Amino acid sequence: MNTFGFNFRITIYGESHGMAVGIIIDGVPAGMSLKPEDFFLDINRRKPGAKGTTSRMEEDLPKFISGVFNDHTTGAPLHIQFENNDVRSGDYEHIKSHPRPGHADFVAFKKYKGFNDYRGGGHFSGRLTLPLVVAGVIAKKIIDPVLVQATVVEVGGRKDIEKAVQEALDAKDSIGGIVRCSIVNAPVGLGEPFFNSIESMISHLIFAIPAVKGIEFGSGFAASAMRGSEHNDPIMDASGKTASNHAGGINGGISNGNEIHFRVAIKPTSSIQKEQESLNLLSDKVDVIETRGRHDACIALRVPVVVEAVAAIVMADFYLQHVIEQ
Amino acid sequence: MNTFGFNFRITIYGESHGMAVGIIIDGVPAGMSLKPEDFFLDINRRKPGAKGTTSRMEEDLPKFISGVFNDHTTGAPLHIQFENNDVRSGDYEHIKSHPRPGHADFVAFKKYKGFNDYRGGGHFSGRLTLPLVVAGVIAKKIIDPVLVQATVVEVGGRKDIEKAVQEALDAKDSIGGIVRCSIVNAPVGLGEPFFNSIESMISHLIFAIPAVKGIEFGSGFAASAMRGSEHNDPIMDASGKTASNHAGGINGGISNGNEIHFRVAIKPTSSIQKEQESLNLLSDKVDVIETRGRHDACIALRVPVVVEAVAAIVMADFYLQHVIEQ
Amino acid sequence: MNTFGFNFRITIYGESHGMAVGIIIDGVPAGMSLKPEDFFLDINRRKPGAKGTTSRMEEDLPKFISGVFNDHTTGAPLHIQFENNDVRSGDYEHIKSHPRPGHADFVAFKKYKGFNDYRGGGHFSGRLTLPLVVAGVIAKKIIDPVLVQATVVEVGGRKDIEKAVQEALDAKDSIGGIVRCSIVNAPVGLGEPFFNSIESMISHLIFAIPAVKGIEFGSGFAASAMRGSEHNDPIMDASGKTASNHAGGINGGISNGNEIHFRVAIKPTSSIQKEQESLNLLSDKVDVIETRGRHDACIALRVPVVVEAVAAIVMADFYLQHVIEQ
Amino acid sequence: MNTFGFNFRITIYGESHGMAVGIIIDGVPAGMSLKPEDFFLDINRRKPGAKGTTSRMEEDLPKFISGVFNDHTTGAPLHIQFENNDVRSGDYEHIKSHPRPGHADFVAFKKYKGFNDYRGGGHFSGRLTLPLVVAGVIAKKIIDPVLVQATVVEVGGRKDIEKAVQEALDAKDSIGGIVRCSIVNAPVGLGEPFFNSIESMISHLIFAIPAVKGIEFGSGFAASAMRGSEHNDPIMDASGKTASNHAGGINGGISNGNEIHFRVAIKPTSSIQKEQESLNLLSDKVDVIETRGRHDACIALRVPVVVEAVAAIVMADFYLQHVIEQ
Repeated sequence: MNTFGFNFRITIYGESHGMAVGIIIDGVPAGMSLKPEDFFLDINRRKPGAKGTTSRMEEDLPKFISGVFNDHTTGAPLHIQFENNDVRSGDYEHIKSHPRPGHADFVAFKKYKGFNDYRGGGHFSGRLTLPLVVAGVIAKKIIDPVLVQATVVEVGGRKDIEKAVQEALDAKDSIGGIVRCSIVNAPVGLGEPFFNSIESMISHLIFAIPAVKGIEFGSGFAASAMRGSEHNDPIMDASGKTASNHAGGINGGISNGNEIHFRVAIKPTSSIQKEQESLNLLSDKVDVIETRGRHDACIALRVPVVVEAVAAIVMADFYLQHVIEQ
Repeated sequence: MNTFGFNFRITIYGESHGMAVGIIIDGVPAGMSLKPEDFFLDINRRKPGAKGTTSRMEEDLPKFISGVFNDHTTGAPLHIQFENNDVRSGDYEHIKSHPRPGHADFVAFKKYKGFNDYRGGGHFSGRLTLPLVVAGVIAKKIIDPVLVQATVVEVGGRKDIEKAVQEALDAKDSIGGIVRCSIVNAPVGLGEPFFNSIESMISHLIFAIPAVKGIEFGSGFAASAMRGSEHNDPIMDASGKTASNHAGGINGGISNGNEIHFRVAIKPTSSIQKEQESLNLLSDKVDVIETRGRHDACIALRVPVVVEAVAAIVMADFYLQHVIEQ
Repeated sequence: MNTFGFNFRITIYGESHGMAVGIIIDGVPAGMSLKPEDFFLDINRRKPGAKGTTSRMEEDLPKFISGVFNDHTTGAPLHIQFENNDVRSGDYEHIKSHPRPGHADFVAFKKYKGFNDYRGGGHFSGRLTLPLVVAGVIAKKIIDPVLVQATVVEVGGRKDIEKAVQEALDAKDSIGGIVRCSIVNAPVGLGEPFFNSIESMISHLIFAIPAVKGIEFGSGFAASAMRGSEHNDPIMDASGKTASNHAGGINGGISNGNEIHFRVAIKPTSSIQKEQESLNLLSDKVDVIETRGRHDACIALRVPVVVEAVAAIVMADFYLQHVIEQ
Repeated sequence: MNTFGFNFRITIYGESHGMAVGIIIDGVPAGMSLKPEDFFLDINRRKPGAKGTTSRMEEDLPKFISGVFNDHTTGAPLHIQFENNDVRSGDYEHIKSHPRPGHADFVAFKKYKGFNDYRGGGHFSGRLTLPLVVAGVIAKKIIDPVLVQATVVEVGGRKDIEKAVQEALDAKDSIGGIVRCSIVNAPVGLGEPFFNSIESMISHLIFAIPAVKGIEFGSGFAASAMRGSEHNDPIMDASGKTASNHAGGINGGISNGNEIHFRVAIKPTSSIQKEQESLNLLSDKVDVIETRGRHDACIALRVPVVVEAVAAIVMADFYLQHVIEQ
């Protein structure tokens, strides 16, 4: 239940304050050039540092445990691991008795009967998106010249993003945002009808990213208010180019040759410095709690590279399938 | 690529104008009472008839091909089939050369190199949601007393739903809508972190429904404009009950004991009687086309029971998994 | 749990005395010519008729329910169904209380808590191999010019096969046999190390055939008595041709360019006319029972085409994967 | 393609001379006690040391990378890693140009276009069975009181096992063997008809063990020479106990409450000190080669604990499924 994909298949593991996080990737073709520095750009994009992001600083050096030999992929399972170093588990003792509102602390405690690693959220930590980012880098290489690009387009419902973040910080609070992702140069015919539509597979993996609460393709929710005559995209030539792109580049679950685009809603970070009420599991009463640990005020700022990664992973899966069909 | 689920697993087949559509379901426990009449209510909810729905009338009688004996499930693969009877394929000859805007005609032609069954959209037809509805009925029985309910909450961006449909009909046009789905009585602990979060699995299957363009859980896109102090749901007691429910009943991908709820954006039906421009594949020029066949002006009206079905299918999958974990 | 394969994926259903048996196949490329008569030869090879086979005569007409249009595959799920006609369920009432030794009657009763369809063995019937045979026909088309051929090489431990069968018939008894299968023209490189080795995948599906009790590749059990210097196959040229073929054409789970061959042990048919002792579930005492119904004295005679089919199914799966890798 | 199982799911990685080998296990229930010392017994059984086994000595210390906290499983993906230390890659430079007969060197070179890690056989190494052994230890805990036990019953076709090994060693040669595995206390009802029969799943994973060339359940190949009246196992009481056990404890793919037993044929180790002929890829001519590196003369001696492990893994998968069904 921890493996995703058909032709490009990923398996993740790790906890926020455990020894390491990592990923095993199957289906990577043999002979691809692969060096640690190929990953630095995207790893850095995910790193904190900007205003409104956490002060936890991990080196995030990708270690090739298997599947790479002489700087090339071997065709065997590719395993990339990241050690956890900058860990301050003491900050999290409180969680044992005080599940943080908006976090998985309570459900993890219940689901795993109290045996979950609660430190830093354990396996539920956003740190697990780091392995997704490296899988995304490899996926991007496979699908080249298909290009995947994501950016933050709104924070707190506003376009003046930096200001919105600063205001949240000043209020010891956090704030949500919207990420837009665009995929260009995809050939016509990627995706499957029904269960493995492009939307199904992308949304599946997008909702694996912590803090995501919504996704819409093309006109999305706005489409629900449109008429068909307005929403339909007239096909203009034999390449499939359409005059408008309300469909977001997908018909019947399959790429139609136009830009694929979708928007992702990111909730505000649950951990805030402001005092909040929540349950004290020891007393079974509601207490005022203060969340410790180091956190992002606006996690949306760090999400675009993760959104790109999972979109590229799905596209790589379809792309390899497409090879069979052609 | 046509099978979905782990413990409750479905495989679908069929075309709009072929011999039949149907579904094979694995994982149904032996000994469940099952009669054709168990399905009538939900099948009827999916049927056209209301203003703004198609005039194609199928009997939609579920035929138990395998897996049922003496009115009970046997534990063997359960196969339910529906014959196609009210078929007017002649209406669709035009599609061969004139792919309908907003439909899968063009991508299907390209992906399958012209060998796709284009009649009525072939395998891309909304008729394939009928097998999903019957699987949903069985899933609902399995998860009882967990209850799944969906309704149309908006059409064309408005709450006066009937009026909005009538106006679209009068304009020989179609219109989109929003469906809200609610799941109550789910225990704490359904779902998995990351790849098989409740949101991942539900969205995967929701986007398998034709015409869906967006999904949001809990506050969804509105959450992107909120502060953490506003969005976080304080836990009130040991059952996990929260004071608010912005999370939509899910934390870290896992049910938290509160109502699970999500909203689905449905685009306007692509087939409209109004004239539209689209490509003529024979001349490679843009023509004015008029879509024939019988269609819904507002497919959103027939979608709620399908949304319920796929939500129940996912919940049944998790529910059977939960049995192992407890 | 009822679906097999990655790129060429099959799902089966049906019972011996139910309405029908059938198969859904995903991954069949669009545009393959496909007519009912393509299946007749292999269907007939599986049919009884020879001395020592059952007198149940089914027409076994393959009905294309979906995925075929204008005599070509469409790329959509391909569903082939066979109706059950020559059914004499009355013969099987006895099974309810008297599970037949060597059959699945007892385990099915226990596993499915008495709700299993016991007529003719229900879902455990050898009739389910008919859908496998038709999937095999399609697989053979896909892998052409790779050729899969199987024959009976021993019955009752003897090479004079007809005589051995006659003697068993005369004794109102049944008899086992050995089937040898050969796959030629397979390119180097099919299969995966470890979990999806050629041997793993072929044996998986071979043991899905009722009555199979053993499989050996190349020298098989004889290899356990050999020295390495004797067993190793010297590679003779750059095509991978080996001087001997003790490996059965497979190294490290992967095809090496030589003939792939394996042998399958088939047990004697469990249903015999001779009296046998078994449990009476009503009295909980051991009774003398006599098996009714129509049965094969030597099921091994009908198995080769099924062995071919499953081998071809596995090879098609690997073959489509190979396309990605090349 | 590198992941196996449904409810108890394993993913392996690593190369003989890479940084590490390891396994990720999903589906391990939370709250199981787990310490490194739980693994020592089985790890030691797999270690060389006995006459006829390799002189490579690895410490084989299991490192819990994730999924264990405070000496208990957490319910999150369980990752166990083994470092490679005693590596002498220089011994293997020769392989690049001289694929060893009986090894995967040639097929790996072809399949992965020369990019495979050839050192010590790379990902094809028997070292990958170490992760299987630790998964087996956990599986054995889950299925307790079901017991899995395997032993070498023949070497070189003989019962005087030590003598047979010594003779092979004296001849600078290697020798094959047979391992018998027994599973007791399994409840009635594990396994599925057809694709996921006990035989299908066990044989699938048994053939993932390097050097395995055959498997037979119950009477196996001997059954092919039997009559039905001799082979059928009369059921003696309501627990399913049979008077004989030719079926090896399995009917219709499902456990029948008796001992499950099977035998596995192991080929002689391919690497021998004796001179052999094989292809020189540089000259494209046949050379006399001598295999360097450290190897086992009789790998069969180290295989029983691996056979146990994979059998336990499969039983754990079925056992967790059984929980749902009961």
